[in-house]
Order: sequence, then structure tokens, then C-alpha cells
Amino acid sequence: MEEFNKLVESEAANIQRSAQEDEDECDPESNTLNEPLLKRNRTLSSNPLAIVGTKVSHIESLDYEINENDLFKQDWRSRSKVQVLQYIFLKWLLAFLVGLLTGLVATFINLAVENIAGYKLLAVVKYIEQERYLMGFVYMAGANFLLTLVAAVLCVFFAPTAAGPGIPEIKAYLNGVDTPNMFGATQLIVKIVGSIGAVAAGLDLGKEGPLVHIGSCIASLLGQGGPDNYRIKWRWLRYFNNDRDRRDLITCGSSSGVCAAFRSPVGGVLFALEEVATWWRSALLWRTFFSTAVVVVVLRAFMEYCKSGNCGLFGKGGLIMFDVSGVSVNYHVVDIVPVAVIGVLGGVLGSLYNHLLHKVLKVYNVINKKGKLYKLLLSLSVSIFTSVCLYGLPFLAKCRPCDSSIVDSSCPTTGRAGNFKQFNCPKGYYNDLATLLLTTNDDAVRNIFSINTSSEFHIFSLVIFFALYCILGLITFGIAVPSGLFLPIILMGSAYGRLLGMAMGSYTNIDQGLYAVLGAASLMAGSMRMTVSLCVIFLELTNNLLLLPITMLVLLIAKTVGDCFNPSIYEIILELKDLPFLDANPEPWMRNITVGELADAKPAVVTLSGIEKVGRIVEVLKNTTFNGFPVVDCGVTPPTGSPNGATELHGLVLRAHLILVLKKKWFLRERRRTQEWEVREKFTSIDLAERGGKIDDVTVSKNEMEMYVDLHPLTNTTPYTVVESMSVAKALVLFRQVGLRHMLILPKYQAAGVSPVVGILTRQDLIAHNILSAFPHLEKSKGSKKGN
Amino acid sequence: MEEFNKLVESEAANIQRSAQEDEDECDPESNTLNEPLLKRNRTLSSNPLAIVGTKVSHIESLDYEINENDLFKQDWRSRSKVQVLQYIFLKWLLAFLVGLLTGLVATFINLAVENIAGYKLLAVVKYIEQERYLMGFVYMAGANFLLTLVAAVLCVFFAPTAAGPGIPEIKAYLNGVDTPNMFGATQLIVKIVGSIGAVAAGLDLGKEGPLVHIGSCIASLLGQGGPDNYRIKWRWLRYFNNDRDRRDLITCGSSSGVCAAFRSPVGGVLFALEEVATWWRSALLWRTFFSTAVVVVVLRAFMEYCKSGNCGLFGKGGLIMFDVSGVSVNYHVVDIVPVAVIGVLGGVLGSLYNHLLHKVLKVYNVINKKGKLYKLLLSLSVSIFTSVCLYGLPFLAKCRPCDSSIVDSSCPTTGRAGNFKQFNCPKGYYNDLATLLLTTNDDAVRNIFSINTSSEFHIFSLVIFFALYCILGLITFGIAVPSGLFLPIILMGSAYGRLLGMAMGSYTNIDQGLYAVLGAASLMAGSMRMTVSLCVIFLELTNNLLLLPITMLVLLIAKTVGDCFNPSIYEIILELKDLPFLDANPEPWMRNITVGELADAKPAVVTLSGIEKVGRIVEVLKNTTFNGFPVVDCGVTPPTGSPNGATELHGLVLRAHLILVLKKKWFLRERRRTQEWEVREKFTSIDLAERGGKIDDVTVSKNEMEMYVDLHPLTNTTPYTVVESMSVAKALVLFRQVGLRHMLILPKYQAAGVSPVVGILTRQDLIAHNILSAFPHLEKSKGSKKGN
Repeated sequence: MEEFNKLVESEAANIQRSAQEDEDECDPESNTLNEPLLKRNRTLSSNPLAIVGTKVSHIESLDYEINENDLFKQDWRSRSKVQVLQYIFLKWLLAFLVGLLTGLVATFINLAVENIAGYKLLAVVKYIEQERYLMGFVYMAGANFLLTLVAAVLCVFFAPTAAGPGIPEIKAYLNGVDTPNMFGATQLIVKIVGSIGAVAAGLDLGKEGPLVHIGSCIASLLGQGGPDNYRIKWRWLRYFNNDRDRRDLITCGSSSGVCAAFRSPVGGVLFALEEVATWWRSALLWRTFFSTAVVVVVLRAFMEYCKSGNCGLFGKGGLIMFDVSGVSVNYHVVDIVPVAVIGVLGGVLGSLYNHLLHKVLKVYNVINKKGKLYKLLLSLSVSIFTSVCLYGLPFLAKCRPCDSSIVDSSCPTTGRAGNFKQFNCPKGYYNDLATLLLTTNDDAVRNIFSINTSSEFHIFSLVIFFALYCILGLITFGIAVPSGLFLPIILMGSAYGRLLGMAMGSYTNIDQGLYAVLGAASLMAGSMRMTVSLCVIFLELTNNLLLLPITMLVLLIAKTVGDCFNPSIYEIILELKDLPFLDANPEPWMRNITVGELADAKPAVVTLSGIEKVGRIVEVLKNTTFNGFPVVDCGVTPPTGSPNGATELHGLVLRAHLILVLKKKWFLRERRRTQEWEVREKFTSIDLAERGGKIDDVTVSKNEMEMYVDLHPLTNTTPYTVVESMSVAKALVLFRQVGLRHMLILPKYQAAGVSPVVGILTRQDLIAHNILSAFPHLEKSKGSKKGN
Repeated sequence: MEEFNKLVESEAANIQRSAQEDEDECDPESNTLNEPLLKRNRTLSSNPLAIVGTKVSHIESLDYEINENDLFKQDWRSRSKVQVLQYIFLKWLLAFLVGLLTGLVATFINLAVENIAGYKLLAVVKYIEQERYLMGFVYMAGANFLLTLVAAVLCVFFAPTAAGPGIPEIKAYLNGVDTPNMFGATQLIVKIVGSIGAVAAGLDLGKEGPLVHIGSCIASLLGQGGPDNYRIKWRWLRYFNNDRDRRDLITCGSSSGVCAAFRSPVGGVLFALEEVATWWRSALLWRTFFSTAVVVVVLRAFMEYCKSGNCGLFGKGGLIMFDVSGVSVNYHVVDIVPVAVIGVLGGVLGSLYNHLLHKVLKVYNVINKKGKLYKLLLSLSVSIFTSVCLYGLPFLAKCRPCDSSIVDSSCPTTGRAGNFKQFNCPKGYYNDLATLLLTTNDDAVRNIFSINTSSEFHIFSLVIFFALYCILGLITFGIAVPSGLFLPIILMGSAYGRLLGMAMGSYTNIDQGLYAVLGAASLMAGSMRMTVSLCVIFLELTNNLLLLPITMLVLLIAKTVGDCFNPSIYEIILELKDLPFLDANPEPWMRNITVGELADAKPAVVTLSGIEKVGRIVEVLKNTTFNGFPVVDCGVTPPTGSPNGATELHGLVLRAHLILVLKKKWFLRERRRTQEWEVREKFTSIDLAERGGKIDDVTVSKNEMEMYVDLHPLTNTTPYTVVESMSVAKALVLFRQVGLRHMLILPKYQAAGVSPVVGILTRQDLIAHNILSAFPHLEKSKGSKKGN
């Protein structure tokens, strides 16, 4: 091994030198076909680091492109009809399983949360009934503290990527960024248990975002046949051992997650389509729809089962459902004004929330970087603060008499759930703030959404509620527990919506509960900037189609207003995490720069010969970090043109495949083309699908270094290419639409001695701020983005 | 002009010869840079003819690619922020107007149909009451005949493209196929009036498909500022004078149309997404959503207005609404069996319907080709046949006594609408078949969908109804009137659905009306193969979310079963019309052929010099039908490589721009590069956006023929390219994803004397059956399509 390293080092200088010397001839012995067209400062640096979860990780790109090398073609041709049917069957079976398991896990989480939080609240209520207020507080704060501790310890020590909602990372994954340690079994378990702990602890966060992540984890694990170390090596599963099919599965998983969170099958599909996925095909629409259908059936069956009281304290709760299907909604033209006001408010507040959350997350990042203990302390202090507020604030509210028309058993309610909590009040009175605070978040939403209860809440209580949840919503999201953004935003939004409804008083025909719904919708649109999927989710939540037109109006206005100020919260988080996400629309200034200029600013491209010396392959792998290398043949005779020989671009070979060749020691004594059977004997397509080998793990003897490798059969002969005069804007469109990892740049000149490859572009080279840092003059020409 | 033609003809031989001679040198004087790499039989023929509407037309491709030439870049750079804002504002204004106008037109059609058909039926009922049955028949058949005549005459003589649903052509347009005379003012008016006539005539067709076409027409007309000959030359509108923005607008229009047809805003958006559109962006989702929201508001306002009886006979009808929101739907696990049966039935019958309709349409094509009179006669015979059946068949049904529990004014109904038509029956009895047949199609749907009326229809009547509509559904669709497919399929499907419900009897918990709904859904899915959009449309029609899970199940099963037999009805029609639609998934055998092989099978590519002789441009335009020409510079000196000169690929110039140059006579006396201001003086970006000039309209004098044109500023310098070794499968993915019209093929060899362009691929070259006819050996290797 040491000898090997020395050998490499001694030759490392060579390769560098030869690249510098810029030799023009194409000598098959020297193998240095890497002439830069112009010698400029190579400044376009790519930074393959990003924050995944809360940890800085080295990220890679995914290969969504079909790697058409000889082996793949052989494998593909040999697939019989039966195998194609196996593939189709398995694809649907996996979609079914994703739905089934996501539904079951969601059920389990709901059951656990409702029971844990329920028994906790029952105990607290008992202390309050006995007027042992301090004891009640200690009990509640203690329970919350412990629950948070469990969630935080799991997240901090076992799976840092399980903290937060996970949606931005999934979005990045589907965009083509491999986010390591995101979809493993540990993450799944931590996310499930952590989510139960965090939600049951009464923290201002939801299980909706985590459920999306859980769905994706399940999908990924199913696709690869189990956890990393205990994979089932089922022969059928090998069809799914590629990034494309995994991407499709994870899309299914994320929509199942949304569906499980809101019991909204169509909304789930649309959420994945509008917010999460980058590529979309009609066929995928259908498959995700199937998954969400399965989820709904599972949830329905479970709710039927629980109706008979078999589920402990699980009542109707656990799934935010604001069923107003029975309510006849009346609204007239005049009601458009308050509805528009809600929309504008939602846009302004939503973008303000995004702005402030951005700041808070930056501060949190600094704290979190200090160490695991700091992370833990942060989470626990937020938990204590939350407990203090939830328990203490209701004492500020005045007791309100129960409405005489409903004085039966329902007011005041002393149990766990219910619309009129007695708390510290005498009989016949209730504490409206306790109704909202001393309950689970789901029940709080149900209470504030409640219909025909126009005098239930006092303005003062609602203002306190709104202010509290604004603060909690900002400080809770960044802590190291699994946390969703949906519920905090719904709580905030419903508060100001209902406040506006109260302010309108008798000037409006719309019920205050509906105002609360519209407020929640507007803040979601103002912060997350989704429209169609949110609209459908709210439609499915409220189960009332008559609400659709006003919901649409609110969402459209809120999104438009919000877009004037800043990007959506997910985009902000993506940027904060430095994930190289490729936007759908290129920046306008990208038209002013060509890919040739980008290539000039990068390190010279390193090409390999079709039949390459082992030594040089080792050298190149050791001394570069590139993941793909163009394969170029010298001195071939084209059908027409100069007889003195031409260079031929054979294709692109991946680092993973080169390492595989070195590992399997598929070396030749002489410089010759191999036959197809020789390759097939040595490699299977399963081998090629594996990734993650490292050059440092490979040992090659000195003798072997002098041998040759025939790269032709392993080379992807059909890489996507652009000419150097292509503008970056159009290259980016190609890169994103087709889902590439590498894009070869060809020269626009055709002549002897011109290198057939000018450069390689990767995802990092096309990220706007990377380009701007290398070409600062573009910043000046940077106009406003052409709107869409 | 004559002189000019002679000149061209004499030189035409030249160009052909020089192409044959295959000269290797690159002599800027001879300008013949078109060497084929291999001399093979050039057999890949492209057939730019297709049936648009019912007429064979010459079709072109659309340019969705951004044509980055110097002028465009200049225009784009000079766009100020204000102009960008104008663009955004106008984009939204247009989306608003599309929604508004589509809503108003839909309202108008509904009003007209309901009133015309209503008064017609009232008169018929009066005759029947007087027992003047023959007179009643003559009146009904006569009215139907006249109404059909109006619709057919308009379609046959004024706008043949207005016949049929128009959805396949819209689908093709959004895929990049320009279908001429599809979106004009004449088409719009004929479609509106024809649709009213055909629907009011009681033919078995709907206004749903036509409404989609109407929405698209409105969008297209708005985008171009009015009808072709009377366009508003508003400066702002020039931003929309390109295929990309027109595509987006037409997408908005088509979803508005669906929304107007079913009052289903989300369904409309999803229909456009799932069935119609080829490209989709998240931003577009939002805009189409806005349009459909406007449509819904318009429809709602109009229905509010009509409630007070201002709309003549317009009652609740005109918009299929099967509002079961009040019905509590109960179903249990056992009900899955009949639901699955409906799904399977729907799939089988749907694909059978597709199969038979295909045959019928082929026969109709033969008839229609014989002449306009034949077309007319066909339509009128169908009308008479329909009248005979609708009027005559109810006499076969036995009179049924009214249910004693509802004997009030509602049974029997003698008026226009209503669930229990008296027809020829005595008092207290009703004719169940007349209820379904002697009414408008919309009312028939409502009647057969009706809930809690389990004993209303006799099995015999339903069987007759089903059989009749199977026949009518097959023979009506192809006649020369605007016709939608939705309603016939709903009618057929609901019949067998309800029959199944009756057969189940007491074994099921689901109401017969719901069985009818599920039957309709299953047949739609079985024939049209949509899932998510249909599901949402049915959700919005039934206004009951509890139905969602079983609807989903039915749709999924029906589509799966149907897909086993044949493609969707729209795909069948697209193929029948020979529209070059690019599928999302390449055929598997496309991996076995490279684009280089395709290029070899095509006529040699004709290249132009950067500075080209006028004579040669005229020659080339006269003698070829290509729409794009690569521009190649000879003898340039690349930064590196051979000093003896290289060839440089400058880009691609469009035929339309060459014609523009000839028309504007922008000629140079000497061979020189022009300055930017010279071009800008002569051309504006508005000029460049115009298309449709013909070379025959251009006259060039003999002197001018010897002058030069600098093509550089008009050349798109950033065409998308592939290397000749690229497989057709991957090239197709690129072509479709990026939305191309031309794709340049580059050589994989790099040497002196190799042409920098090997060939050009267009849409026609990538159509599967075109490739197969040139490479029959691929047929053998043609495996089953890898499922998705």
C-alpha cells in the first residue's frame, strides 16, 4: 500500500505538469489530452459541502441519466418479457407497500401522540381541579421536558438528519442532489419516535413535515431491500438499484406522507408535484395517486376500528379534520373585501415570517455548531419556555360564562378535549385561552376552526394566542427534533383569521370559523407559496366545495404578495443549507455567458484514452475529485476527412466504474480492444449499479501499473453534450430537464489538433452564486428575473 | 419573376450536383459544405401531412426553443424593468381574460342549449299530451334535423377544423405541432354556434370537448391580439408573439374550458396537466389555476342570477352537477367486490369502445374524403336515426305506477325536466325510458344518477338505454359537428353502472345512483385513461369527499385493465390523424439505433456559410423544404489546433429569417461581417417573430443574386446538439423535454476536413413509425414497451 502511494505521488507531479504544459499532439503513449483552450485563472470553484439535516456533509450528485455503456445495453437487450413484467409488477407492489406502511406508521404516530399527550393532560387537569396549580405545572413541564429530551437525544446522537422537517432535503434529492444519511433505517426510527416525543411534548410543531420524510424513508428502504447493512438480495429488486427508479419511489413516498398527514390523497399528489418533485411524468402521477389511495384506505380502516373505543384516548383527533361539509356557506360579493384583506395579510405576514425565521435559523446554526450539548440545551430550553407559556398564560384570561343555550355536559368540559375548558374557573364558566393552549395542537386547531361559536373567544385571548404562537413558531422550528412547519403556520394563521372575523362582526356573512380557516390558508400560501396543492388540501380538510372559490382567491393573493418580498420558506432553507438546487428558471444574466467561458474558469478537463494504462487511471483518480472522465481515442480514421488520423470522442466513464475495474483487476497485458464476452464474464450490471467505492481502498502492484485497461465497454457512449458557444441559460435548462450529472462541452471548431472535449459541467458549475463568484462582472448586469 | 425562376432552376441542378459530388474542400466560393458521411440510400422520409380537423393539411413544428441570435440578445438586453413588469402584468391579465371570456361563452352556450332544447321538448310534450304522436315525432325530428344542419353546414363549409372535440389537436399543439387553422376566430365562432346546434339537436355528444377547444381559441386569439386579419398591434402584445408564451396561454385556455364544462377548477388544471400538456412548470400550474378560478366565479355569478328565473328555461341544468354532498355514503369492505367489478367492466368496455370507434372513424374518413356533400349527408342521417330512436324506443317501455309515497306534483312530470316523465302513460304512471331519452343529455345524466330512486327504472329500460347509447356513441362522434366525448361515455357508463347496482340488489350498501356515477367514471378511465384529473372532476361534480376512495379504486382498476388492450382514445385519434406526437417514453428499440444512422438515412444536410451569396440562399430555399440550416464558417483560426484553418459551427438559421432577409433585401456588395447597428436598423425582434413568408413571394434580381448576406446576426448561436453516437432514445428525451424543433448532430470525430455538422433531426425523424419504415430490421427487435 505504501509503495503504491509513493508511486502515485511520484507520478502525480507528472500529470499536473503535463496538464500545464498544454501539449498539442495526441500521442497515445503520453495520454495527455487535456489542453485548455485559453490559459486563464481557473477560479470557478465548486463546493461540494452542504448542511444535511444539521450536519455539514459532503454531497454528491445523482445519476438520473441512463448510462448507456456496452454492459448496460447487453443487460437491457437480454431482458426478457417476463423480466419486464416482473419489473412492472414490483413497481406497483412497491407503490402499494409504500402507501400501506406509511399509513400504518401514521396511524401508530397518531395513536401514540394522542394517548401520551392525552394522559398527560388528564393528569394535569386533575391537579387543577384540586387547585394544586404548582403541582400541575411541575407535572406538565416535567413530562414535556422528558418527551423533548427523548426526541432531542435521538436526533442529536443517532440521526442528526432526522431533525427538522426533511422536506428541503427531499426536494434536493429529487432535484438530483444526493443527501447522505437521509433515507436510512436509523433516520426512519428516530424520526418516528422523535416525532411522537416532540409532538406529545406540546412543542409548537407538527407531525406533517416528518411524515413526508417518513414516507420517503420507507420508500427508499423498500426500494433497496432493507437497511444498508441487512439488504435483501432479492433478484427482482436489482431493477430498482438505480437513481431513476429510486427517485420515483421517493416521490411516491413523499406524497403518501402528505396524504397521511392531512388525509388528503389528491392534495398529497399535488403537493409532491408542485413543491417537491423536479421531474414529473404522467405515469408517475398515476402511481403516486395509487399510493395515496392506499394510505387513505388504511387511515379510514383504522378510524373505523377506533370508533368503537379500542384506541385508548384516541378520539376524532390526531388527524386535523375540519369537517364543515354540513355547513352551508353563504357569501356574497361584498365578502370579497375581507377575503382579499386576509390574503394580503397572509402574504405580508408569511414573508415576514420567512424573513425572521431565516435570521433565527442563522443564529441557531451558530449555536448548533458549538456541539451536541448546546443543541440539546437549546431544545430543552425551548421546551421549558413552551411549558411555562402554555400553562401560565391561561391565568391571564378572564373566565367566561357558558352560553346558556348549550349548558349541558359540553360546557365547561373538564376532560381532555372539548371546546370549553374549565381550567381555573368556577362551574358554568370556562377559560377560553386554556381551550386553545392546554390541549394538543390538533385539538387547538379544531377549536379555533369551530363553527357557530362566534362569542366563544375573547379578542384579548386570541391576541395572546397569536402573539405566543408567533414567538413559538420562530424559536421552535430550528431545534434538534423532528419538526413540521405546517401546524405552527396553521395555528398562527387561524388566530389572525379569526381575529379579523371578529373585527368584521356583523358586516360579513362568513362564519368566524371559516375566517380562521382562510387565515391559516393565507399564511401557508404566504410562507410556503404553494397554491393548487394547498387549495386541494384545504378542500379535502374542510370537505366543502363551496369554500373553493374563496380559498383560491385567498391563496392566489397571499402568494402574489409574498412573492414580492422573498422566496418561499423551503427555498430559504435550501439556500441556508447550501444544497445545490437547480432552479427551474435560469437567471437572466446567464444568457450573457457561454458554457465555454465557464469551462475556461474550471480546472482543465482530464481525459482518458479508450485503452488506458492502469498507472494513469490510478494517478487521475488519486489527484482529481472529478466523478466523470471523457474517453477519447486518438489516431482513428474517420469515414471521411483527413487520413492522417482524427481524435474520436468515445464517451464518458464514471469514477465508480474505474474504481470497480481497479478493484476487480480487469487488466490487459497488451494494448487491445476486448471482446464483449470478456467484459460480461467479469462484470454484471449489478456491479455497475453499486457506488461509493473509494480509490484509497484499492491496491495495485507496480507490475499491474504498467498494464492496460480497455475502457470502451464501460464508457457511456451517449453522454449529453453542448457546444462551447451555448449560453449557460440554455445549458441549465437542458441539465435540469434531462436530469444530468455531467454535461460534456464540445468545441465549435472542427480541425486537426483541436481537443474533442473542451470541458465538463456539473451541477455545481451551474449554481448561480458559484458562477457569480467567478464572474463578478455578471452581477452588475444581473437584472430582475423575468417573471413567470 | 419569371426571369428569377429560370435563374433558380438553372442553378438548382448545380446545388444538387454539388451535393452529390461530395466535395471535401471547404471553398468559401463554392459554398457546398454538405458532404454525407456515408453514401447510403436516403430513405427516412418525413411526411409533413396530417389530418387537422377533418382536412388533410401541411403541418409544421413549433419553435419552443429560445432563438438566441444577436437580435434577440440585443432585444432582451434592452428590456427595461418596466417592460418586464409590463410582460408580467399582461401575462396575468391575459390569464384573467381567458378565464372571464371562457366563462361567459360557456354561460352563453348553456343558456342557448337549455332554451332551444327546452322549448323544443315542451312543444313535443304538448303534442304527446294531445296524443298526436306522429306530429310530435315530425316536430322533434324536424327541429333536430335543422339544428344539425346548421352545425354541420358551418363545420363543413366554414371551419372543418371545428368538427370533433379538438382535444387531440390541442394536445398535439402543446407537444409542438403547429396545426393550422385551429385557433382562429372563424373556428371559435363555428365551434360555439355548431356546439349549440349539435347539443340542442339531441345528438349523443357533449359540449365538454368543444369547450376545451373554445377556451384554447380564446386564449390564442387574445395572445395574438385578435383574428389574423384584424390584429391589434398593441406594443405590449409583442412579448407574446412567440410560440412559448402562446403555448402557456393555450394551456390556460384548455384548463379553463374543462373547468367551464364541469364547474371543476382543480379538475380543469389537472386535466390540462395530465392529458393535454406536454411541458409543465410549477409557475404555469399557478396561472392556469388562476384562470379556472375566474371561470368558476363567472359561472357561479351567472347561476345566482338565473336562480331568480331570468334565464328562460335554464334551470339547474346545463352544467352536469350531481350534487350528493348531502347524502351520507356508507360502504364497507364487502362493497369492494362490486366496485372492483365496475372497474374491470369499465376497462374492458372502454378499450372495446376505443377499438370499435377506431374502426368507425376509419370508415367515416373514407366517406368524408368523398366530398362535402357526403359529410353533410352523414351528419344528417345520424341526426334522423337519433331522433327515431329517442322518440320511438320509449313506446317499448311499459308504464310504471308512481311510487305512492311521492305522488305529489313530482310524479308524473309533464314539463321539460323531471325524474318521472308521463309520455304516453295514464295519470299516476310514468314511462321510465322517456325519462332518460326525451330530455337533454345533461338531464338524462342527472336522472340516471339520481339517488334514493332504486325502483325508478326497469332493467329492460336500462338495457335498451345502454344499447342505444352504445350505438349512438359509436356513430355520432365522427360526424362533422363539434362533438365532445365526455358526455356519451358518461351516459354509456352510467347505464351499465346502474344495471350492476340493480343486479346487486340488497347485497350492497351503495345506492344505485352512486353505482351509475362509478360506472361513468370507470368507462371514462377505461377509454380516456386519465386518473387523477377524472377523480378530481368527479369529486367536484359529486361534491362528496367520502366517495373519493372508491372512485379512486374504480379509476385505477379501469385504467389498468384498459391499458392491457389498447392506448387511450386520444392517442388513437392522434395516430389516425397522423399528427407527429412525441411520446414521453421512447420505444425500447430506439436504444439500438444512433442519431448518426438516422442522419445517414436522410437527405444530406444543407449548410450555409456565415456570409453567403444571395443566389445560393434563394437556390437552397427553392430546392429544399428544410426549415433550418446550419451556418458554418470556413477557414477560421481556432485558438489552438491546426493553423491551416478550421471550420466553425456558428449555429442554425431559420427559413423564416432567410426569407425575411430576402424580402427586406438586406444585401451586401462585398463579403464582410456586419456591425450590430446595421442589423438593428433593418430588423426588429417583431419582424423576426413573424412567420409564414414563402420563398415564392420573393423576387430577387439577377444583380442582387451576386451579392452577399451576413447571416451571423440572424443565426441562433446556441442550438441544442447531440453527437452522432447518441442513441435515438436519449435524443428523443432531449428533443421532447426541451421542446425543440431542430436538433443538430455533431460528428464524434475531430479532424481536418470533417464536416462540423453531420445532420439535422426534426420531429418527423423521431416519430417511431417513420424510423421503422426506414429501418425495418428494428421491427424485429421491437420488444414490449418497458412499462411505467
